[in-house]
Amino acid sequence: MSDASWFEDSLGKEKLEKKAFKAMESELRMELVELQQQLRGANFPVMMVFAGVDGAGKHEMVNTLNDWMDPRGVSTHAYEQPDAVEQQRPPEWRYWRDLPANGQIGIYLSAWYSRPLLHRVRRTRSEEAFLTRLKRINAFERTLEDNGALLVKVWMHLDKKQQRLRLEELSSDPETEWEVKPGAWENWGLYDRFMQASSEIMRSSKEAGRPWLVVDGRYEYSRQLVVLHALRDALRERLAKAPNPKALTAKAWDKKLAAKRGILKGMKLDQDIELSEYKARLKQAQRRLYQLQHRAKEAGMSTILVFEGQDAAGKGGAIRRVVKGLDAQEYQVIPIAAPTKEEFAHHYLWRFWRHLPKEGRVTIFDRSWYGRVLVERVEGFADDAAWQRAFQEMNEFEQRLTENRCVVCKFWIQIDKQEQLRRFEARQEVPYKQWKITDEDWRNREKWDAYDVAVDDMVALTNPKSAPWVLVEGNNKRWSRVKVIETVCEQMERGLKTFSS
Amino acid sequence: MSDASWFEDSLGKEKLEKKAFKAMESELRMELVELQQQLRGANFPVMMVFAGVDGAGKHEMVNTLNDWMDPRGVSTHAYEQPDAVEQQRPPEWRYWRDLPANGQIGIYLSAWYSRPLLHRVRRTRSEEAFLTRLKRINAFERTLEDNGALLVKVWMHLDKKQQRLRLEELSSDPETEWEVKPGAWENWGLYDRFMQASSEIMRSSKEAGRPWLVVDGRYEYSRQLVVLHALRDALRERLAKAPNPKALTAKAWDKKLAAKRGILKGMKLDQDIELSEYKARLKQAQRRLYQLQHRAKEAGMSTILVFEGQDAAGKGGAIRRVVKGLDAQEYQVIPIAAPTKEEFAHHYLWRFWRHLPKEGRVTIFDRSWYGRVLVERVEGFADDAAWQRAFQEMNEFEQRLTENRCVVCKFWIQIDKQEQLRRFEARQEVPYKQWKITDEDWRNREKWDAYDVAVDDMVALTNPKSAPWVLVEGNNKRWSRVKVIETVCEQMERGLKTFSS
Repeated sequence: MSDASWFEDSLGKEKLEKKAFKAMESELRMELVELQQQLRGANFPVMMVFAGVDGAGKHEMVNTLNDWMDPRGVSTHAYEQPDAVEQQRPPEWRYWRDLPANGQIGIYLSAWYSRPLLHRVRRTRSEEAFLTRLKRINAFERTLEDNGALLVKVWMHLDKKQQRLRLEELSSDPETEWEVKPGAWENWGLYDRFMQASSEIMRSSKEAGRPWLVVDGRYEYSRQLVVLHALRDALRERLAKAPNPKALTAKAWDKKLAAKRGILKGMKLDQDIELSEYKARLKQAQRRLYQLQHRAKEAGMSTILVFEGQDAAGKGGAIRRVVKGLDAQEYQVIPIAAPTKEEFAHHYLWRFWRHLPKEGRVTIFDRSWYGRVLVERVEGFADDAAWQRAFQEMNEFEQRLTENRCVVCKFWIQIDKQEQLRRFEARQEVPYKQWKITDEDWRNREKWDAYDVAVDDMVALTNPKSAPWVLVEGNNKRWSRVKVIETVCEQMERGLKTFSS
Repeated sequence: MSDASWFEDSLGKEKLEKKAFKAMESELRMELVELQQQLRGANFPVMMVFAGVDGAGKHEMVNTLNDWMDPRGVSTHAYEQPDAVEQQRPPEWRYWRDLPANGQIGIYLSAWYSRPLLHRVRRTRSEEAFLTRLKRINAFERTLEDNGALLVKVWMHLDKKQQRLRLEELSSDPETEWEVKPGAWENWGLYDRFMQASSEIMRSSKEAGRPWLVVDGRYEYSRQLVVLHALRDALRERLAKAPNPKALTAKAWDKKLAAKRGILKGMKLDQDIELSEYKARLKQAQRRLYQLQHRAKEAGMSTILVFEGQDAAGKGGAIRRVVKGLDAQEYQVIPIAAPTKEEFAHHYLWRFWRHLPKEGRVTIFDRSWYGRVLVERVEGFADDAAWQRAFQEMNEFEQRLTENRCVVCKFWIQIDKQEQLRRFEARQEVPYKQWKITDEDWRNREKWDAYDVAVDDMVALTNPKSAPWVLVEGNNKRWSRVKVIETVCEQMERGLKTFSS
């Protein structure tokens, strides 16, 4: 398909007069307002992405939407160059941060397509890097959509001649001259490159099954009507019929994973270490960690530690030994419990994206996003399709991190059932530790085998070289603590080599 | 009072052996854990601030607290140099951002006292600037405390000789040598200056009625016991007895404000403007605004616009005319409705601090913090003491902004009762505008006189030169829109003069 052909059939080609538009306005507004009311109670958000040619009416469209809709349910986000804080995270970070909650509409201008496009047009990034970015964007949009978001992607178009006429028209009137932004003519000069790169976007989006609505941007009322109708129809359709993602049956899933299971069974949980050796190695590792953290800061490398394990496996104790080797300014421990109401109203990864460390820092998750395939799977809080696709989503999430100067170090601390019982009982004997054991812990214990399977699957499916699981034999606390902190040091060292080269 | 005397009587002077500490541990942990449980259901947060001499055990103390308490109810925040994003806001911004919710404990290291102290010790800031900062800190702590927070301020102390011994001790053992941070000896060399500035902190805090607990930092177990007891006692006392702030009676308040009321009565609400003049002036102002915004960006000046007014006064319409003159990347409109559950569990100003623009940007509040002295006062959502002290708190909040390269431009749009009725009825006739009129709007209308008084008081008490109220005659929409946008331009221009000089 030639470049231009992606845009040839754009809608809104016939000129609609103001009068005709106004005649339809009342009914259409009414429909949209009513749909927005229904949306408020729904369990999904709407994300409208605007892109296209300058002068084709993107801003005017956003103003109209803000005018027509209830502002308490709409937030508009327009992005400029990533600032210092944004630059220290993966490019998607700011869009995750600005994700709408369920029932809300987010409008996005100059968002995730814009910077890659600009970079490509100005040749500040290679074709290859551009195509990789488009793949990442597809993964981003897929997980949003899979987890419920209604995406509406609108491309407002003008051809080269039309854009020139539009810019001339604005420039010729002293009252609108200022609307021609600095650089507008330069961009126009790069129109052909712009079309070429835009066609790649069109192609990539179409192949991913999330095509753009291409709108002819010549006529004010025509283009607005097309967009407003599209939003109305998309909302109506989605509210009438929720997607029903397919999942494997329990049997089919087990069959698929059968060959990969059993890794926990092979662990020798009772490995021991002498007290004196423990003390010496711990001290040494803390010292080494302290130095590594300073080197990481210089190298702009951030570190994420993930701790998972059964109740009473010793996550907290291991974390406390790690942080003893870190400056308090340089780390943050994030305990993960059930999501708050606000967190629950967002994509399940939203709360983790929000906590990503800036360059040079360490963030420690005491439990993590893996809750999706552990507790949420076992307890049925996530439906089958949701936890089954989560493995890929979490791999992609971590890939975003490891691609962006971040070490991701994941620990599964394993104890056996007898050891857990011993620890539960010991905790119940110590008055000030009783609160740590709840009825829920006893209930979880009854589901030990289901958790074993879930952990097996997790390790099998989310174990890339760039962010591997470290299985920690946990029956002996000294052993597990030393293994954890020494592994953190090794992985940070490895990270420093990778990211410095 | 001489410098040293602030620290002479510090608690924890007697050396407690490990064994004696361990003998008390069980009961004390139990007490703290139980108090934390009670706290979870309480309507206030706890903020523990640690400061003092390096080597006196601050970090160890924080580790113990994190070890003992339920981590889901504790967050620890340690700060380094303000980063690029933090630098673009008032110094308090990052502490407001990290405020704990009710029922939570926030632990603060290297926080709001640290940077001013360091600056003073290194002579990178004048005595005068230092004292001003201490005043700001007092205002910050006062509003936290007045709105419920339990503040526990702990100063861990060592005298000059003790600190030298401590540093030498750590340095002499290869296993702890790394714990002596770079710069530690240099700081020790500045000990006398450090004491001098610290004494100012002690004095300022004491005079403000929020003194420090000074703890002798020589002995590990002694110092820990003192801090843990202090936390226990403070929690116990606060949970047993909520503060009962005094408020003026309605009569006394009215008497106090009587002379200042009546400003709304003097407004000529029906001023008109020709359609052609309206169009020309609006276009011209939008163009001017566009240029001012670009100059503001260069100057690093941010702008906050606050819109208040009766229901249907025309806030939304005025805002839309303003943003038409701005790049979408450069502004954000924040509609303020009733607080979410999360917002409600924080200081009422928390959600506004979170939205402060970075340098060069415009943030528009459609309703604002003034809800505290309008709807919350009239409807009784805030108790008398709360709204009565809010005037000062809001003045101080805005002062933080105007001191930090920010223009604060506040509009009260006034319509009369007949005009409101006309607009309500008009809205109800247009199907797609009916949703804008709710039962609440009709109820508010019945309290018109109470709102009039509240607005009078608000304008009288929060009208400093640096952030004055602009009263907008709103019966005629053209008039009010032109007045709003032209005022925005004037105030930005004035701001550019001030902040460029």
